[in-house]
Amino acid sequence: MDKTLQQYIDKLNSLNFAEMYNGDFYLTWDKTQDELEAIFTVADALRYMRENNISTTIFESGLGISLFRDNSTRTRFSFASACNLLGLEVQDLDEGKSQVAHGETVRETANMVSFMADVIGIRDDMYIGKGHTYQKEFMDAVTEGNKAGILEQKPTLVNLQCDIDHPTQAMADALHIIHEFGGIENLKGKKVAMTWAYSPSYGKPLSVPQGIVGLMTRFGMDVVLAHPEGYEIMPEVEEVAKKNAAASGGSFTKVNTMAEAFKDADVVYPKSWAPFAAMEKRTVLYGNGDMAGVKALELELLEQNKQHMDWCCTEELMATTKDGKALYMHCLPADINDVSCVNGEVEATVFDRYRDPLYMEASYKPYIIAAMIFLAKVKDPQATLKALEERSVARWFQK
Amino acid sequence: MDKTLQQYIDKLNSLNFAEMYNGDFYLTWDKTQDELEAIFTVADALRYMRENNISTTIFESGLGISLFRDNSTRTRFSFASACNLLGLEVQDLDEGKSQVAHGETVRETANMVSFMADVIGIRDDMYIGKGHTYQKEFMDAVTEGNKAGILEQKPTLVNLQCDIDHPTQAMADALHIIHEFGGIENLKGKKVAMTWAYSPSYGKPLSVPQGIVGLMTRFGMDVVLAHPEGYEIMPEVEEVAKKNAAASGGSFTKVNTMAEAFKDADVVYPKSWAPFAAMEKRTVLYGNGDMAGVKALELELLEQNKQHMDWCCTEELMATTKDGKALYMHCLPADINDVSCVNGEVEATVFDRYRDPLYMEASYKPYIIAAMIFLAKVKDPQATLKALEERSVARWFQK
Amino acid sequence: MDKTLQQYIDKLNSLNFAEMYNGDFYLTWDKTQDELEAIFTVADALRYMRENNISTTIFESGLGISLFRDNSTRTRFSFASACNLLGLEVQDLDEGKSQVAHGETVRETANMVSFMADVIGIRDDMYIGKGHTYQKEFMDAVTEGNKAGILEQKPTLVNLQCDIDHPTQAMADALHIIHEFGGIENLKGKKVAMTWAYSPSYGKPLSVPQGIVGLMTRFGMDVVLAHPEGYEIMPEVEEVAKKNAAASGGSFTKVNTMAEAFKDADVVYPKSWAPFAAMEKRTVLYGNGDMAGVKALELELLEQNKQHMDWCCTEELMATTKDGKALYMHCLPADINDVSCVNGEVEATVFDRYRDPLYMEASYKPYIIAAMIFLAKVKDPQATLKALEERSVARWFQK
Repeated sequence: MDKTLQQYIDKLNSLNFAEMYNGDFYLTWDKTQDELEAIFTVADALRYMRENNISTTIFESGLGISLFRDNSTRTRFSFASACNLLGLEVQDLDEGKSQVAHGETVRETANMVSFMADVIGIRDDMYIGKGHTYQKEFMDAVTEGNKAGILEQKPTLVNLQCDIDHPTQAMADALHIIHEFGGIENLKGKKVAMTWAYSPSYGKPLSVPQGIVGLMTRFGMDVVLAHPEGYEIMPEVEEVAKKNAAASGGSFTKVNTMAEAFKDADVVYPKSWAPFAAMEKRTVLYGNGDMAGVKALELELLEQNKQHMDWCCTEELMATTKDGKALYMHCLPADINDVSCVNGEVEATVFDRYRDPLYMEASYKPYIIAAMIFLAKVKDPQATLKALEERSVARWFQK
Repeated sequence: MDKTLQQYIDKLNSLNFAEMYNGDFYLTWDKTQDELEAIFTVADALRYMRENNISTTIFESGLGISLFRDNSTRTRFSFASACNLLGLEVQDLDEGKSQVAHGETVRETANMVSFMADVIGIRDDMYIGKGHTYQKEFMDAVTEGNKAGILEQKPTLVNLQCDIDHPTQAMADALHIIHEFGGIENLKGKKVAMTWAYSPSYGKPLSVPQGIVGLMTRFGMDVVLAHPEGYEIMPEVEEVAKKNAAASGGSFTKVNTMAEAFKDADVVYPKSWAPFAAMEKRTVLYGNGDMAGVKALELELLEQNKQHMDWCCTEELMATTKDGKALYMHCLPADINDVSCVNGEVEATVFDRYRDPLYMEASYKPYIIAAMIFLAKVKDPQATLKALEERSVARWFQK
Repeated sequence: MDKTLQQYIDKLNSLNFAEMYNGDFYLTWDKTQDELEAIFTVADALRYMRENNISTTIFESGLGISLFRDNSTRTRFSFASACNLLGLEVQDLDEGKSQVAHGETVRETANMVSFMADVIGIRDDMYIGKGHTYQKEFMDAVTEGNKAGILEQKPTLVNLQCDIDHPTQAMADALHIIHEFGGIENLKGKKVAMTWAYSPSYGKPLSVPQGIVGLMTRFGMDVVLAHPEGYEIMPEVEEVAKKNAAASGGSFTKVNTMAEAFKDADVVYPKSWAPFAAMEKRTVLYGNGDMAGVKALELELLEQNKQHMDWCCTEELMATTKDGKALYMHCLPADINDVSCVNGEVEATVFDRYRDPLYMEASYKPYIIAAMIFLAKVKDPQATLKALEERSVARWFQK
């Protein structure tokens, strides 16, 4: 029997997510288990409705402001798709990448662009210790503006990647795993290997591995983090992962080789990132305008990376996973051996075999973002989903 | 008793603004008193409707073209918000800032981008003697195009700032004052001080002070313009202000110190601008491609500014205003002492105290722009507002 | 008697275009005669509906992705207008002009931006042998993505100009001629002169002349191509033109002077383009990163052009056309003598006399694009047009 919208509504009825209304989305670990499940459920429901040609535009007008302090294609399009799916028009706030606005300026800019903004999506992942803080500062400003009656509505924040977490990515990844394993209840006891991998490029953000260990530990999974010495992630996030694992009946372990991590894994996520300590150092160098120091650090880090070129997701390693068939994951784009570089994160044959699942993984992101917005903007999601079905406006009109 | 939409409609019924249909908005002094009041009234009505979740999208499709020949964040977002509120999608025409298009090119480009354009918003404030002329040239081209049957509709111009006036700013400022003083009828006899102030930056446009004295003199207010010698505004605009004051029963005076201007003022608007004569000179230098001359002029002007660092909106000066409580205004961003610069236009404590009113002042701009568009695009605004209320489509749909 | 929508529907009923549903638009010669006529008919129907204030938005949500690998104003606005007319929001994919993405990257990017994309418009006309290939590669990727269930819909390609054809331009040009001559049936036997003309600039794409001879030969016209030696177009396209002419009962001739081409012509299209062989060479030089070679080639080509400054559309030549009144056409912008350059493609008085028809010619492009999308996205266009008329939603709502 096919799914019906009612099944998603029934699921929502079993969850408590009342606090999400008018809220923001910074970090997955700010959210309760029920709240995470509500997002997965609404994401699936919105996809179901789009596939069944039911329009889900809940806004007749309104803006979704995007602020990308780092280049982005897929997150940019995911945010644009999500806003459009709900009826919002995206307006990009282009600050200039080099100018890091602070203080007075943030407060003012935040309000000036938000008079008709229902959503704010911010990507600010470049500087350890800055991105999350900036998002908070921005949202404090619009919250005050709303209280003072300047803004008629409080825009909702969707964290499109900060220095700590990348929740739209991690949640899309989780929804992919849920679908692959046939339900969130089937994740218990599954082994997930989040491992570092070699890349010839430099300074990739830590928010992906942090987001993954911070989220996957919520579902009773055995999460293993592996990286060479010196590539530690933020200690606070490791603490989060430990606490999550304890609460969910799973585990969070650290190992020092890909081999240990991959052994019998159900899911592998090999991906490069920069050492936390080096990223902290870089933030200071940038703060001091020491560009020679930045350049020197870059060379040093590339050298450091090169000592770990054996950290690659090979066929050999994949064969050691559960039945040799672990689900290979990546946030994309991956550094693929002999395709995008000589030595990279993954062998071409491995990547090729998983291309469809990888693209499918990415396809959940627009829906995850739309669900985050929906749950923040709609007081009674169940009734509103039902009303949208009854309104029965075609997304794509034809006779 | 709360306001109802009918009250705005009743007000409109008392005004004559029939000429606005299919018109353009270049300068506030092109418009009659009734026409200005119609804009204020529709702006308030649109805000009322948005606050009451009534969609005001009058366009199912159609483009709003924006052309910014100068950087802009708040005007850009105000224009985007206004277009979106009425159902238009913004398309930005990015000419390249350095390339000043003329003649054949303007005529052609204007038509090429306007096949489905209902609105054109142009900001061209950099060169004295050019901006307004360019807007006229652009609109002549599309008016011809419409007459020749090439364009199905004549797009409406909204002047988003030219060399002469900044009408969306001045009108938003006026609406702010109207709300602060409890009605347009209460402005009579109020003293407004439009004064120059020191800024460490260079070449700020004259269109704000010109727009303010050109508009505030319409309401029977006592408008005082103060600036150091050499910072004269365009003489034509001073003439406009004088005539307006005579007609409205107010006054327009020039003084040479902030102290005189602030004394017993009800409203103060201290803001930096460049000397008119220097801006004329700059236009010629740019026209001749004399970049060394431009650079030399810049240094000269910064030096000249420095001789007037005492022109700052201090607590001391604020204390001399009416009851020490004049409404402080600014188009933002302001140069704030010890915040955005060492010495600037205003002391930080003054700015801080007025932050909420300043942001509120800015919040009227999207509605002023939307009202300008509405009145140019709708033949019977009263009936259409009523019909929108009866249509009763939610801006933000939920159950 | 005025046209009614039913007349367009009747016309469609007489045509067979079933294959267009879910299809793409690469080259006009991929399409049957009936399919081309269906596009003209839907373009006219959509224009009729817009002029009669009937909304044609068939999408409540959905994106139109634009990818411009070359600068563009008019095609960019035409695509944006077309998407907006049908209810799609444009999102621009900005790859960076210099970075020509290949292989893995194209496949991945194509899918990543297309999760909610209904239309993809690509302009890639810079490199002979590359543009069309890139479009195919992009579409193969999304077609696979759709088959694998990753993309819920297969986006439709609209070729916004490639190295071979410029179908939205050529189709708009053809619709202009159809209207000027009072019907497609009146084109038979008319003489069209597609001729090279001198321009002081360099490297203009060949896709316009190729598009024109590839399309105009479909309607029984006598198409004459004229250019100096060395300015040959792609031989494959000449073959297409010959076959078309044979099939349609027209002719395709090549001559070596403008005089021969213009003699008794009903339509003239004088326009500069780069020599095919040189463009092939340039592609190789770019491929090898030989920027010195590119620069040398540019100088060589400018010199070569200068030997043909007599190829200009003069009043004298215009006088030799049919009754001295041939329809002058250009894709714009034209190089106009003493206006945009000293010596160019056309004398100013000729251009001036034809300005209105030239702008009208351009005005068809948004409708041609919209028609291409409509026919690919709507299974039963006749019923859907009828339903849109019956839905009777105003494009521009007012009472």
